[in-house]
Amino acid sequence: MDAIALWQRYQDWLYFHEGLGLYVDVSRMRFDDAFVESLRPKFDKAFGDMAELEKGAIANPDENRMVGHYWLRNPDLAPTPELTQEIVQTLEQIEAFAEKVQTGAIHPPRANRFTDIISIGIGGSALGPEFVSEALASDFPPLKIHFIDNTDPAGIDRILNQLRNNLASTLVLVISKSGGTPEPRNGMIEVKKAYAGHNLDFAQYAVAITSPGSNLDKVAQSEGWLATFPMYDWVGGRTSEMSTVGLVPAALQGIDIRAMLDGAKEMDDATRIPDIKKNPAALLALSWYYAGDGKGKKDMVVLPYKDSLALFSRYLQQLVMESLGKEQDLEGNIVHQGIAVYGNKGSTDQHAYVQQLRDGVPNFFATLIEVLEDRHGQSPEIDPGVTSGDYLSGFLQGTRKALYENQRDSITITIPQVNARTVGALIALYDRAVGFYGNLVNINAYHQPGVEAGKKAAAAILDLQTKVVTVLQAEKTPLSLGEIAEKAGAPEEVEAIYKILRHLHVNQRGVVLQGNLGEPGSLKVSLS
Amino acid sequence: MDAIALWQRYQDWLYFHEGLGLYVDVSRMRFDDAFVESLRPKFDKAFGDMAELEKGAIANPDENRMVGHYWLRNPDLAPTPELTQEIVQTLEQIEAFAEKVQTGAIHPPRANRFTDIISIGIGGSALGPEFVSEALASDFPPLKIHFIDNTDPAGIDRILNQLRNNLASTLVLVISKSGGTPEPRNGMIEVKKAYAGHNLDFAQYAVAITSPGSNLDKVAQSEGWLATFPMYDWVGGRTSEMSTVGLVPAALQGIDIRAMLDGAKEMDDATRIPDIKKNPAALLALSWYYAGDGKGKKDMVVLPYKDSLALFSRYLQQLVMESLGKEQDLEGNIVHQGIAVYGNKGSTDQHAYVQQLRDGVPNFFATLIEVLEDRHGQSPEIDPGVTSGDYLSGFLQGTRKALYENQRDSITITIPQVNARTVGALIALYDRAVGFYGNLVNINAYHQPGVEAGKKAAAAILDLQTKVVTVLQAEKTPLSLGEIAEKAGAPEEVEAIYKILRHLHVNQRGVVLQGNLGEPGSLKVSLS
Repeated sequence: MDAIALWQRYQDWLYFHEGLGLYVDVSRMRFDDAFVESLRPKFDKAFGDMAELEKGAIANPDENRMVGHYWLRNPDLAPTPELTQEIVQTLEQIEAFAEKVQTGAIHPPRANRFTDIISIGIGGSALGPEFVSEALASDFPPLKIHFIDNTDPAGIDRILNQLRNNLASTLVLVISKSGGTPEPRNGMIEVKKAYAGHNLDFAQYAVAITSPGSNLDKVAQSEGWLATFPMYDWVGGRTSEMSTVGLVPAALQGIDIRAMLDGAKEMDDATRIPDIKKNPAALLALSWYYAGDGKGKKDMVVLPYKDSLALFSRYLQQLVMESLGKEQDLEGNIVHQGIAVYGNKGSTDQHAYVQQLRDGVPNFFATLIEVLEDRHGQSPEIDPGVTSGDYLSGFLQGTRKALYENQRDSITITIPQVNARTVGALIALYDRAVGFYGNLVNINAYHQPGVEAGKKAAAAILDLQTKVVTVLQAEKTPLSLGEIAEKAGAPEEVEAIYKILRHLHVNQRGVVLQGNLGEPGSLKVSLS
Repeated sequence: MDAIALWQRYQDWLYFHEGLGLYVDVSRMRFDDAFVESLRPKFDKAFGDMAELEKGAIANPDENRMVGHYWLRNPDLAPTPELTQEIVQTLEQIEAFAEKVQTGAIHPPRANRFTDIISIGIGGSALGPEFVSEALASDFPPLKIHFIDNTDPAGIDRILNQLRNNLASTLVLVISKSGGTPEPRNGMIEVKKAYAGHNLDFAQYAVAITSPGSNLDKVAQSEGWLATFPMYDWVGGRTSEMSTVGLVPAALQGIDIRAMLDGAKEMDDATRIPDIKKNPAALLALSWYYAGDGKGKKDMVVLPYKDSLALFSRYLQQLVMESLGKEQDLEGNIVHQGIAVYGNKGSTDQHAYVQQLRDGVPNFFATLIEVLEDRHGQSPEIDPGVTSGDYLSGFLQGTRKALYENQRDSITITIPQVNARTVGALIALYDRAVGFYGNLVNINAYHQPGVEAGKKAAAAILDLQTKVVTVLQAEKTPLSLGEIAEKAGAPEEVEAIYKILRHLHVNQRGVVLQGNLGEPGSLKVSLS
């Protein structure tokens, strides 16, 4: 396509949201009009289904749940007045709580003010808060947040050690929908022990964000924690940033949560328009479908040209891959759907993997995110008439052009600045695009059976560990791995048992390994 | 394959390095013996070529350079005594400098000690130092490091703002091989201005790491910077972590750089063995080749189960994709090679994209990195007999098993703990694996033509910006975008010009846009 035709295509397809100042440019996705026409029936269905979903239809059939994260941004849309009221009241509670914490009206026993937050959560209870904190928290926020988002003992130690002099003024958020997910539960138990070790009464520092009635909720109530905020079963983890999960930590950090919600609401309104060309989320879903032939054949590379948005690609990695990465479609056919997502930030990544994007395997399409405002205030000149921000802008344009010239497709999203409204809008834009795409390819975008299966697989390993230790406790003489497996009633699990024992051995849990460590078959095992 | 046969395959293929306590397990890559035999001739060539490369053969023909990062770990291997001596002396200089800074023998004018570091560099001059800092720096290092790894004005402001009270005790490392790469140059200029704004004489805080004779070197000499360390032309950016690039920041943070070098040396020795089964880097290259059919058909997902290794996947993303992502092979055939790499950390990612890995598009293979030591010291029990670390270990095993059962291949690398030696070894392991793989697929793994092309494309945009501003300065009446393009002698660049002007407009650089912002064709442009 020559430059003039391309400029025309750019103008024809350019989406602009005046209220948000947000652009979506899909002109460098090389679909033609016939392709768009061929998808129109699917989109008409998707627009209709999305309207039903927003009215409270069961959109997650496997779990028999409504999907209501859109209501959080516009409570009047919730299917009952009670739900509307609950959403509104919860929001007011969050703001009231955050204000009291910031002013010191709520303060820890031995200090006038809380200074820090430890946020314990994983997956949807971590990535959203992490992304939003990095994007929107000021350089000196009223409370500084630290995340425990894993069950890595050394990782937990690092956070606690760095905070050891501030623990008496550190608020703890425990974020777990069920209250039973192992990682946040483990984090909570370890942090609780650390507070006890400093003679601090954990309950006076702790806030729960969980489903009403969950185990975590019960613990929080019985121990008298500072506060509890509800998680709803109609909000999935990966779309929970505008629920208590995201809003409590954001409000505590001084982030304007009303503006986030407003930005999301404006985008939700815009993505209800049942016209592909006028609907930015439909444009994204169309482009994704085109790139990967509706089968995820191309990876989605996300490149925000702005340091503060670096975590957006990881946030999208979860949102897109957990929503779309499914074995079966809604009819139970095996489809192995999904779109792989990765990325970090531009122009940094131009000195890393963009070499491959330009020249190597053409197995991806790119999404470039442009932020028009370089910084608050004036920029110094680096060269006459040229600033650091001009370079950043030039790198984005140069990369987009080079990709196109090498037949690599790209989408460009442009926002005027990184603020609570535009971040809310970006989150809402992708929420909806994922919903549309899931509909186009006929999968349930709102469950995560593989995650549940992973939890079970890990639980089976821990069960096996208990059995193995029981076997060894009953033995006087060292056993081979095969003997242990037999006695534990798990003759097929020799390898798993070996790994369990190797791990216990290194961590001085009383397991003695004799023999050649490089030859597992030679090992004899006993307890010390 | 039944459990007994699988356990036998595990033992048959298990690689163990006794000195490092490191295991590589490729048993869950489903290649057979015939496949291994088929690659043997290619590996024999690769082993031979690698030996030549280490002796100083020109292994980067496009740039006519030797590839010598292995010499850094064992200076006796360098091709001349002068080079050996230079490597040894540079290492001693680094250690002497770091010690003087830490003890305060070298200190800033208005403070007894340096407390912080700003490290300015991008790509290979950032990812290695970032990864190593996160993996190995203590919770309270002698100097705390902060990275400027982009040309994002807001990102630079954030670092400078957070350090505003400490600038008088903050050392600045400027890391740029050529001294002309825009991002570090821009970062340096902006940081220099900030120091001047605080009435601090930048030269008394600044250290250059650059090629002898570069522009940066000349500036450092003429201004009398604190120190300058040399970068060699036989070390590529993405393999420079064991050169001054990585060692200076590591030593300043109190990381044991000799142990890092020792670990890398041990691994280099191990990966010189010309026998696939006994060479851990060959096992990786073999597995990569098998997974993607030697054409990068599968993405490499890297999952370290340890918070402190989270950046390893990003480090590998650069190393692998920049090295292998090439358009042409060594004979000039168009091959579009590469392997896409992404990942973050386990078990965190099990609550994000592992849903897709288990159930969705089978377009990847996984690399799980296991760390046997959970933490320094004892772990509390979460359940009877079970610790947080047991959960982490269980999640790793469960995920590996589930992937295998769903016909998704995986490699598992196991290290006893995260320390300077094992981190050095991991870096060296992948250095070599990438070298072997590049040889197997017959590409130059040591250049990055696409990165150079990206710099040129960006420079062209900045040139255009200058022309456009010149055009507008000469005009009294507003012009359309098309008119500006004509007058700037770039009639095909209307879209690029539009984007330049939109960016200047938002940043209050005197550009006035009249018309409908959503319809670029309607705009009239003038200077205020």
